[in-house]
Amino acid sequence: GSELLEQERAKSKVNTSALSTFLHTKAGLERKHKILAILQQEKVFDKSQNYFAGRVDRFETALARAKKLRQLYVKHGWTNDDKQCANELISEPGPYGLHESMFLITLQGQGNAEQHKRFLEPAQEYKYIGCYAQTELGHGSNVRGLETTATWNPEDKTFTIHSPTLTSSKWWIGSLGRTANFAVVMAQLYLGGKPYGPHPFVVQIRDLKTHQPLENIAIGDIGPKFGYNTMDNGYLLFNKVKVPHISMLARFSSIDPKTNKYIRPSSPSLIYGTLTWVRSTIVLQSGGVLARGVTIATRYCSVRRQFQDRDAQSPETAENQVINYTMVQIRLLPLLATCFALHFTGRGMMALYEANQRKLAADAGKGAQSGNRGAGPEETNSSSDLLADLHATSCGLKSLASYTAVEGLEMCRRACGGHGYSNFSGIGTWFADYLPTATWEGDNYMLTQQVARYLLKSARSVLKGNEPTNDTQSILSNFLARQDQGAAFDVLTKDEDIVEAFAWRSSFLTFEALKHRDEQKRSWNSLLVDFYRLSRAHSQYMVVKNFYETLQSPAISSELDPPTLDVMHKLFRLYALHTLEQEASEFYTSSAVTVRQIQLARTNSVMKLLEDIRPHAIRLVDSWDFPDWQLDSSLGRSDGKVYEDMFYRASELNPLNNITVDPYPDSPVLFREKEAQKAKL
Amino acid sequence: GSELLEQERAKSKVNTSALSTFLHTKAGLERKHKILAILQQEKVFDKSQNYFAGRVDRFETALARAKKLRQLYVKHGWTNDDKQCANELISEPGPYGLHESMFLITLQGQGNAEQHKRFLEPAQEYKYIGCYAQTELGHGSNVRGLETTATWNPEDKTFTIHSPTLTSSKWWIGSLGRTANFAVVMAQLYLGGKPYGPHPFVVQIRDLKTHQPLENIAIGDIGPKFGYNTMDNGYLLFNKVKVPHISMLARFSSIDPKTNKYIRPSSPSLIYGTLTWVRSTIVLQSGGVLARGVTIATRYCSVRRQFQDRDAQSPETAENQVINYTMVQIRLLPLLATCFALHFTGRGMMALYEANQRKLAADAGKGAQSGNRGAGPEETNSSSDLLADLHATSCGLKSLASYTAVEGLEMCRRACGGHGYSNFSGIGTWFADYLPTATWEGDNYMLTQQVARYLLKSARSVLKGNEPTNDTQSILSNFLARQDQGAAFDVLTKDEDIVEAFAWRSSFLTFEALKHRDEQKRSWNSLLVDFYRLSRAHSQYMVVKNFYETLQSPAISSELDPPTLDVMHKLFRLYALHTLEQEASEFYTSSAVTVRQIQLARTNSVMKLLEDIRPHAIRLVDSWDFPDWQLDSSLGRSDGKVYEDMFYRASELNPLNNITVDPYPDSPVLFREKEAQKAKL
Ligand SMILES: Cc1cc2nc3c(=O)[nH]c(=O)nc-3n(C[C@H](O)[C@H](O)[C@H](O)COP(=O)(O)OP(=O)(O)OC[C@H]3O[C@@H](n4cnc5c(N)ncnc54)[C@H](O)[C@@H]3O)c2cc1C
Ligand SMILES: Cc1cc2nc3c(=O)[nH]c(=O)nc-3n(C[C@H](O)[C@H](O)[C@H](O)COP(=O)(O)OP(=O)(O)OC[C@H]3O[C@@H](n4cnc5c(N)ncnc54)[C@H](O)[C@@H]3O)c2cc1C
Repeated sequence: GSELLEQERAKSKVNTSALSTFLHTKAGLERKHKILAILQQEKVFDKSQNYFAGRVDRFETALARAKKLRQLYVKHGWTNDDKQCANELISEPGPYGLHESMFLITLQGQGNAEQHKRFLEPAQEYKYIGCYAQTELGHGSNVRGLETTATWNPEDKTFTIHSPTLTSSKWWIGSLGRTANFAVVMAQLYLGGKPYGPHPFVVQIRDLKTHQPLENIAIGDIGPKFGYNTMDNGYLLFNKVKVPHISMLARFSSIDPKTNKYIRPSSPSLIYGTLTWVRSTIVLQSGGVLARGVTIATRYCSVRRQFQDRDAQSPETAENQVINYTMVQIRLLPLLATCFALHFTGRGMMALYEANQRKLAADAGKGAQSGNRGAGPEETNSSSDLLADLHATSCGLKSLASYTAVEGLEMCRRACGGHGYSNFSGIGTWFADYLPTATWEGDNYMLTQQVARYLLKSARSVLKGNEPTNDTQSILSNFLARQDQGAAFDVLTKDEDIVEAFAWRSSFLTFEALKHRDEQKRSWNSLLVDFYRLSRAHSQYMVVKNFYETLQSPAISSELDPPTLDVMHKLFRLYALHTLEQEASEFYTSSAVTVRQIQLARTNSVMKLLEDIRPHAIRLVDSWDFPDWQLDSSLGRSDGKVYEDMFYRASELNPLNNITVDPYPDSPVLFREKEAQKAKL
Repeated sequence: GSELLEQERAKSKVNTSALSTFLHTKAGLERKHKILAILQQEKVFDKSQNYFAGRVDRFETALARAKKLRQLYVKHGWTNDDKQCANELISEPGPYGLHESMFLITLQGQGNAEQHKRFLEPAQEYKYIGCYAQTELGHGSNVRGLETTATWNPEDKTFTIHSPTLTSSKWWIGSLGRTANFAVVMAQLYLGGKPYGPHPFVVQIRDLKTHQPLENIAIGDIGPKFGYNTMDNGYLLFNKVKVPHISMLARFSSIDPKTNKYIRPSSPSLIYGTLTWVRSTIVLQSGGVLARGVTIATRYCSVRRQFQDRDAQSPETAENQVINYTMVQIRLLPLLATCFALHFTGRGMMALYEANQRKLAADAGKGAQSGNRGAGPEETNSSSDLLADLHATSCGLKSLASYTAVEGLEMCRRACGGHGYSNFSGIGTWFADYLPTATWEGDNYMLTQQVARYLLKSARSVLKGNEPTNDTQSILSNFLARQDQGAAFDVLTKDEDIVEAFAWRSSFLTFEALKHRDEQKRSWNSLLVDFYRLSRAHSQYMVVKNFYETLQSPAISSELDPPTLDVMHKLFRLYALHTLEQEASEFYTSSAVTVRQIQLARTNSVMKLLEDIRPHAIRLVDSWDFPDWQLDSSLGRSDGKVYEDMFYRASELNPLNNITVDPYPDSPVLFREKEAQKAKL
């Protein structure tokens, strides 16, 4: 295997290290190698038994790792970026996961100063270890439907937290099952018999010494899952548990303990902001998530040989590397292009998000001077308008990006044939652990309704003749203006035209949906399938546009040399034309392109791009710079020693091989004394 | 949950039991319930710890179950169908799996009378327990590339079996890792220094008493996999191991020990037949495999309520069952239709296969009389012609059907939202165990080349003006005849036209591919992607045709009442039109349908069919008649007690809940003494 990968690397002029730097920044790469060295020295992070251990053992190890990580953090004075980097290298969810993310973030963002002192500070020191308990057995997506109640008791200024039904049991809560002693609990606030909707409460749930659940609280782990088994997702039930006034997180809304009155939320758009940020992070990570699978499969398919080429002249020819088969290329290379596309899109989202946060802060200053914004349409406030756009975009892209990664990983696994099914491939477990990303932070199907709602709103505004204030409105108004002239996009030769064709299709679908909803008065439910397609179309447009803009950026031309840039440009075209071809039917119904163009894209352009990119495949995956330790994959080893590693793991590390069975059906003996035990005698 | 499912059942007039009988036959249903009762009485088949146990424990239990199953088989005098039925109810691969399938089948089919006596008889009594060792670390699909050698030693009339390289290690071999003491080993036969290609040898590999590997043989389990962990897939290496002359299975080819000459294979088409049979079985099972996921998801989505309808008039309206959302329907109901489509197709294949075996037997009789068939084209022999058609069809359908089931199961899991990710959903593990079906018996991508090769050959024959002798040739010649008149299929209203449109598209793609290959002289490799599409198109045509013919059959109209038949007809249309819409771009490029028709199919016909089928969904899944014991799913319970069961399993059966952790990062303690232990004090 080694020679083959060396040959591959010799064949291409792609500048791996410049591309790595462009993808991850110099600081990012240095950080990774610094942290990797630290982790590899610690025995507890040794991965060699990961694929063998059962649930309880894996959880125990994960807890040990979480503790050690926290110790290293303190010892080395790590930043949060350092910690995040360590988590990525370790690549398994751990029992402090929700403490370190949602619990701290929620306390920070939604608590007031007093609550920061009371809860956040001990939490930052791991005296309190928390989780975020929103979802219930009966409700996930529909947060307004949560059944847990928090009733204000004016007599003693407390809340009673209660779980009135079985389905009100908190469920799926990460870090809760065995680890946490505190929880942020989302509960329906009741005040004077009236419901005020779900609000967050900080509740102690286990004794800080004995770690047993407090009185009238039932907690447990919810059991094994398809993946994510190093995390103790848990359930939680309250039997009329009283908590003090300070428990209700009071930054945005609160109860005045003197008047017993509810104080309304001030600026919900900041919470909105956090959701947008979380989703943008998912988009940003999806490229790397997929790149792991693509790296493994591309390396293995370059080492794997199977069959001679059918048209080979001489019967002596060596077997072909399977990556030379076009049917393997069409599965892997568009995914390779997708990794870059998603990564650049995530970056673009993050940049927009940060720009907007700055603007929001500035507007907030102005707002304070001019008082209330008055009754004008929201659209006149450019930052809130941008936020709405960002929010919708992040919903659509989160949905598209996470499914693309999920489906792409399975495609990579398959490309490895039988060996892809072994855990040593490193793809299966990674896939299984990543899978819930499609469900949390908004079920991927549900999110598309938000995108559609936003696009319909934008289309209505454009139809009214309002001046476009963001890109979405611009492409819609562009479409309206040109609708009658028709489109004649030259997608096969002009990059700008590719971007425009994607914009055209998205706009076409938007106005179609608007017609159904506003003119034909169709029910919302009857349009959900159209909305899904619309969201997908719009998100693909965003990805194509972000990839295109990255290629136009001065940064890329200054960092990458022309041969590398040329390959990047081919990856752009491959992503775009392959997507266009996959979604052909929407492109031609919208008249964005002709049937003939799609045929040509399929039979000529895409096939030619596969051929052109093929020689650079190994260097391109190398540029993602995954350490072998992170991939933990026999098939994806950077030195190509695939078979040696498979054999080593199976024969040396596999505990089942210590067991001798009695194979005969009539014998009641299953396992004879273990060989290990025998050796002891 | 219970009331909701009861309401669903009350709402529809589909005759569940008549439909069950039509799907499974009366005898099949009776068998299932008889065997289920027996299994449920045996403690070893208790499933309650299945989702919790680790690999070694699961394997131990699986071995115990395999033994008990064999005992029951003897005790009750079961038939093979009974055993097969028991396996399906247990739903986990077991350590005797390959012994009971490929090992016995190969001995039976490829051994001569002497070998039957020497190997098959003790194997049938489980004195020998075997496996089928073909795949190696370095070669799977390309059997000709196997590296294990079997060299004939004329001096002492033995063979030397040898593994010359690391990559020649047998790998993936089911039942080998810990259980088998015999193996059928595929090895390259060498005779007088010349290679004769791969041949099967029966080799003892472990001592019958100690169960230790025999001298110069290395064996082990290959380690954990994405699924299939109750099976001990193994590796096997030989260091110049001598075996007697009788070891080479001699029904089709052999070595004459006196002359040391190789005796050529007589009738390879019988082996061909076994492969076709195995693939047809996969097609037949795929409908039921998928139906498990569809049953679970459909029941859960009928019990799950989330959100009020957005257009609901009153805010008091109860939350909607999620199956009422069209975006859930479009994911589940076409899959429900697919279950039936695949099941009927599998049946059709099996019937053809059996008819052909009878014909073959008859032809063989004739052949014996008339001597050799002479130099005429193969096409003149109708049974071999049918066999070629069957073989190609089974390749394409195996590929389509197994991927459809794999992807459909994941779709069902997703439809269940967060709870789909719990092992208690019963979908994830089922999916993981089924997944390798896409790889074994021919990698699903590779198989499509065989379909294409066959279709090209058929097209050449038709172009030459030969009279069509089977359906494939008929549709190709039909297409040729009408090509210039064009097609005007009325797919939206006429069922026959739907079938013809599918035939048209498949024929169109065949002649396109032929043009590329024969006229443009394109390389085989450059056409693999086209071949994949072609195979898929042809296989979808077969499925549509089989579903259509089942609906035309007298059997169905005599067994099902009109309301049930009407729903079946809608399922046919849903499967066909949804597929047509998904593959739209091929249908319009081939001019089988117009762009307008596809738009109408999507926006009108399919949406209307969802609405029409929706009320019958629960009864339709009920008709698949999966016992709860078989599904082992909280979400798929036939009584709808979804949440109660989730809670019970998490809180009562989950061993992780016996553990109390020490949560603080600075404490070296991970697990405090277990509660169970404490209780003992
Ligand atoms: C591994 C994992 C970890 C998690 N960790 C946490 C955690 O730490 N804290 C926490 O609070 N939660 C957590 N969750 C819960 C997660 O946030 C929810 O599962 C998610 O919000 C989806 O909700 P649901 O499961 O209720 O799906 P549902 O809303 O019940 O969806 C079921 C199905 O119905 C469809 N559907 C529902 N409503 C509609 C509609 N209006 N229109 C169309 N279709 C609809 C959905 O698309 C889906 O197919 C976790 C989940 C998982 C899997
Ligand atoms: C769970 C499990 C159980 C098994 N049990 C057994 C058993 O009991 N006995 C046994 O002998 N075997 C067994 N196998 C092995 C199985 O039969 C092989 O894995 C299968 O034949 C695929 O071969 P491969 O893994 O070598 O894939 P490869 O042929 O190496 O395929 C790798 C990739 O290359 C592609 N490819 C290869 N050649 C070409 C080509 N010419 N054109 C285009 N693309 C190509 C494939 O599509 C695939 O994507 C088992 C496998 C599994 C996963």
